[in-house]
Amino acid sequence: MHCVALIPVQNGGLKKAISAFTSLCGEDGVSTGETVREQHGRDESVHRSDFQNILAYFSIAFTYRCSGVPHTFMFETSSLHYFDNRTINMYVYTKCTKKTVLLYRCRPPDVVVFPRCVEEVSALAKICYRHNLPIIPFGTGTGLEGGVGALKGGVCFSLRKMDQVLDVHQEDFDVTVEPGVTRKALNSYLRDTGLWFPVDPGADASLCGMAATSASGTNAVHYGTMRENVLNLEVVLADGSVVHTAGKGRRPRKSAAGYNLTNLFVGSEGTLGIITKATLRLYGIPEAVVSAVCSFPSVQAAVDSTVHVLQAGVPIARIEFLDDVMVDACNKFNSLSYPVTPTLFLEFHGTEDSLDEQVRTTEEITSANGGADFQWARDEGTRARLWKARHDAWYAALALRPGCKAYATDVCVPLSRLPHIIVETKEDLIQNGLTGPIAGHVGDGNFHCIMVLDPDDSDEVQRVHQFTERLARRALALEGTCTGEHGVGLGKRALLREEMGPGAMGVMQSLKESLDPKNLMNPGKVL
Amino acid sequence: MHCVALIPVQNGGLKKAISAFTSLCGEDGVSTGETVREQHGRDESVHRSDFQNILAYFSIAFTYRCSGVPHTFMFETSSLHYFDNRTINMYVYTKCTKKTVLLYRCRPPDVVVFPRCVEEVSALAKICYRHNLPIIPFGTGTGLEGGVGALKGGVCFSLRKMDQVLDVHQEDFDVTVEPGVTRKALNSYLRDTGLWFPVDPGADASLCGMAATSASGTNAVHYGTMRENVLNLEVVLADGSVVHTAGKGRRPRKSAAGYNLTNLFVGSEGTLGIITKATLRLYGIPEAVVSAVCSFPSVQAAVDSTVHVLQAGVPIARIEFLDDVMVDACNKFNSLSYPVTPTLFLEFHGTEDSLDEQVRTTEEITSANGGADFQWARDEGTRARLWKARHDAWYAALALRPGCKAYATDVCVPLSRLPHIIVETKEDLIQNGLTGPIAGHVGDGNFHCIMVLDPDDSDEVQRVHQFTERLARRALALEGTCTGEHGVGLGKRALLREEMGPGAMGVMQSLKESLDPKNLMNPGKVL
Repeated sequence: MHCVALIPVQNGGLKKAISAFTSLCGEDGVSTGETVREQHGRDESVHRSDFQNILAYFSIAFTYRCSGVPHTFMFETSSLHYFDNRTINMYVYTKCTKKTVLLYRCRPPDVVVFPRCVEEVSALAKICYRHNLPIIPFGTGTGLEGGVGALKGGVCFSLRKMDQVLDVHQEDFDVTVEPGVTRKALNSYLRDTGLWFPVDPGADASLCGMAATSASGTNAVHYGTMRENVLNLEVVLADGSVVHTAGKGRRPRKSAAGYNLTNLFVGSEGTLGIITKATLRLYGIPEAVVSAVCSFPSVQAAVDSTVHVLQAGVPIARIEFLDDVMVDACNKFNSLSYPVTPTLFLEFHGTEDSLDEQVRTTEEITSANGGADFQWARDEGTRARLWKARHDAWYAALALRPGCKAYATDVCVPLSRLPHIIVETKEDLIQNGLTGPIAGHVGDGNFHCIMVLDPDDSDEVQRVHQFTERLARRALALEGTCTGEHGVGLGKRALLREEMGPGAMGVMQSLKESLDPKNLMNPGKVL
Repeated sequence: MHCVALIPVQNGGLKKAISAFTSLCGEDGVSTGETVREQHGRDESVHRSDFQNILAYFSIAFTYRCSGVPHTFMFETSSLHYFDNRTINMYVYTKCTKKTVLLYRCRPPDVVVFPRCVEEVSALAKICYRHNLPIIPFGTGTGLEGGVGALKGGVCFSLRKMDQVLDVHQEDFDVTVEPGVTRKALNSYLRDTGLWFPVDPGADASLCGMAATSASGTNAVHYGTMRENVLNLEVVLADGSVVHTAGKGRRPRKSAAGYNLTNLFVGSEGTLGIITKATLRLYGIPEAVVSAVCSFPSVQAAVDSTVHVLQAGVPIARIEFLDDVMVDACNKFNSLSYPVTPTLFLEFHGTEDSLDEQVRTTEEITSANGGADFQWARDEGTRARLWKARHDAWYAALALRPGCKAYATDVCVPLSRLPHIIVETKEDLIQNGLTGPIAGHVGDGNFHCIMVLDPDDSDEVQRVHQFTERLARRALALEGTCTGEHGVGLGKRALLREEMGPGAMGVMQSLKESLDPKNLMNPGKVL
C-alpha cells in the first residue's frame, strides 16, 4: 500500500521546544510517551466517516507526488475505500496510481504538556510560536466532532492541572474557573452556596472546553447555552500573549463596551486561542423540581405541545423529545413500559406553588394536543425513575446492537420545522437500513440521531456518512444549522461552508488570519 | 482665532460619488442640503464634553502645523477652554501658539443617502469604497454616545426607507426586520400574533440600530439584551459585499456553527459594517402583568432585596431603582407623594396565579429588608399611574433646572458593588454641586445619573465631564464596565482602553483592520 500521509515536514524545532517545555514545566509536565499522546489525540467521536469533508479539505491543500513529480490529485467520492476506525486513518483508492493510499492520518500530537498556570501556558505558547509548532488545547476529551485531533502534529496543551474554582461571588451570581474544572466538579463545589451552573451537555466536560465548543444540552431552553452564560474569558493567543475578553477581572452582568470578544472565543474550538479562565453566570438552585413524561400520537403533536407550552410562557427548564424507536430501546434497556410512541420528558424548576401551575398548564396543553399517559413526580427518587429512560438513552441505543459503536448527529431547525425533518429522517433511516433512534432538545429545535453502527462494516459506515450529510442538508434546507451544540471540529467543515456561504466564511477566515496569522491554533479545525 | 480643524483632505471623489449615488437612488434618495446633513450628523447625546477622550484620540493622530512646519502637539487637559455645544466644535488653548484653536469639528456628513434595499446599500458602499469615503450608518439618531458624528466627513446611510417587517414566524418565535423598523413599530405590527419583542431602551430606536449598539433597558433582567436576542444579521461590509452572520435565511434558536459573527456585529456600532436586516427572537405576550413599588431605608436595603429576589428565582421582568433625588424630582414633576427614599419599581410577567406568588414572595423579601409602602397593581390604568414616576424620570430630572440639558451616564457593576458605588457617587455629586438623579436597571447592576447641566456654563460642563470620568473609573475599579448599554461611540474610547487593557484592545483593533482595512466604516468610533 502506498502511503501519502499528509504530515508536514518537521521544522527541526520540536526537540529544542521539548527541552524548553521541560525546563518550564518539569519532567512530569511534559510527555512524549505513546500512550499519553494517543489519549490526547482523540475525543469521544467515532471519529465518524466524514470523508467528504476531509476530501474537501485536502482537495485544496494537497498536492500528490507521483514518482517525485507533483500533480493535482483528483478525488472522486465514489472511490472511497474504508477508514480505520481506531486510529482515524483514512484511505482512498486513486485513479492516478490505481492503488489504495493512506490519504489522511490523524496522528496523535508530538508531545503533551501539562501547564500549571496561565504564565506557563503563555510561556509554552511562546515557544511553540517561535518554532512554528501547532497548539491543540485539550480539556477532558469529551468532544464529539474530532476537535482535538493533531492534524498537523504539534503540541497538545492538557489543562487538567489547572483545576481551581476561583472567586465565587454569591451575591453577584458569578464564578471564575480554571480550565480543568468540570461542570460536575463546579456544581459539587457550589453545593452549599444555593447556586448552580445549569448548562449540561451530558458529559462531565470541562467548563472552558464547553465554552470553546459553545456547548448547551438539556437546560438550554430555560437557562441558555454557553453563549449566554460566559461573562469573561482569559485567553492565551497564538503568540503567547494573554488577553481578557471583557477586560481583566471584569464581571458585569451586561456590557456594551466594544466588540464582544467573549462570544468570539466562545465556540471558536481552540482555533483562536487557549481559554485559561472563564467567568460564568450562576443561578439560584430551584426550590423545587418536578419531572413529567407524556406520550403523543405523532411527532407533530409532541412539537405542537412544545410550541404551545412556550407560547403560554411556562418557564419550562427541560423539554426533551424521544422518538418511538428511542422509547422502545429505553423500555428494553431498563425494563420499562412507556408506550412506544413519540414522547416528551419535561422538567420544571420553581417554587412549590408555581410548579403546580406549570404542571397543570402543561398537562392541559399536552392533553389538548392528544398527549396521553401524563405522569409527573416531585420527589427525587420518583423523578429519577421517571427520567431514567432519557438519561440512559445513549446506552439504550448502544444496547440495540451489542458490540457496535454509537455516533450522535446534531442538527437544529426552527421549531415548526421539527415534525417535517424528524418524519423525513425516520423514513430515511428505514430506507437505508440504519439504526438511529432520535433524542432531542425539542424546546430549541435541536435533535440527535444516535447512530449505532459497526465500524468494521465499510458499507454501513459509508451509508451512515451519507445519511448524516443528508440530515445536515435537510436542516440547512429548513433554515436550520448543521450543528446545534456539538460544533464543527473536523467533521463539519464542508457543511459549515454550505451553511454560511462564501461571504460569512470569508469573514471567519479573516478573523482567523488576523488573530492567528501562522495558523498554529488547532489548525484544520472549523475552517 | 486660529483654526486647525482635523478634516481630511477630500480625495476629489466626492462629486463623482454623489453623481453615482443619484443615478442609483434617484434625486430624492440623495441629499446634500445643509438641514438634512445637520440632522444626520448628531444623535441625542449632548454630545457631552468628553474632551479627555477627544484629546487622547487626537494626541495620537494629530500633528499640528505651526507656520507650515509640522511638530508634535502637546496637550494639557488643564488648557481646555470651552466647547460649542450646538455644533460640537471643540477649542483648546495651546501653549505652542498661545492662542485658542479649533481642535475638533464634528461636522455633518458631506452627503446623506436613502437606500431602499440591500442591493442599493451594497452598490452605494462599493462607490464609497472606490472613492475612500467614510460610511456612517444612521437609524433613528437616538444614540447617546455620539455614534453618528461624521468625524471625517463622508456619507451618511440613512436607512429609514427600508422599513418592512419581513417573515414573522409565529410558531418559531422569530421575525426578520429591515433597518428602518423601530421597536414600537414592530410591537404594533405583532399585536395580533400574541408575540412581542421585549428589549426596551426607552427611545423608539430602530431595531438594527439597537443591534448595532448592543442596547438593552428595563426588561433585560428577564429577557436579556440585544446580544441574547439577535439570531442573524444581514450586514453590508466596507467593500460593499453582503454577508449573513448566521448564513442566509437561517434562524435556529441556537447554533454551534463556526465563529459567532452575529455577536461580533451586535455592539460594533457601525464600525464593522452596515446592518441591513436583523432576525430577532420573540416572546409570548404575558397573560398578566403586575406592577409594584416599594420604598427602602437605604440603597443597601434596595439592592439586598434585588439580590434576594433573584436568588429566590422570582422570574421578575423589570426591577428598577430610583434614588431619593430622582423620587423627589418625580414627585414634584407629577404631583406624586412617594416617600423620598431609595425606591424600587418592579414588574412581573406571567399567569394570574403565578403572579400572585411572585408578588407575595417579593413583598416578603422587601419587607425583610426594611422595605415599606409596598404597593402593587394589576389593571393597566393603575399600573401606569404606579410606574409613571419611573417612566417620566428623564423629564422629571430636566424639570429640576428648566432650560438646561440632560445627559445620562451609564455604568454597570456586579450587583453587590451597587450600594458602594451609588453612595459614593451621590457624595461626589453633592461635593461638586452637580444635579444628577439616579435611575438604574438594578437587576443587571446597571445605572444612570441623569446629569442636568447648563451647556453654556463651561465650568459646570467641565465639572460634569470630570464627574462622569470619575464615575466610570469607579465602576472599573469595582470590576464593572464604563458602559452597560449606551455603547462607546465617540465619548468612551479612552475609558474603553482602560477597561479592556492593551491586549484586548489589540484584538479589537486587529478585527477592525481585517474587516475594514481602509477604516471607512464609521471611522473614529469605538476604537
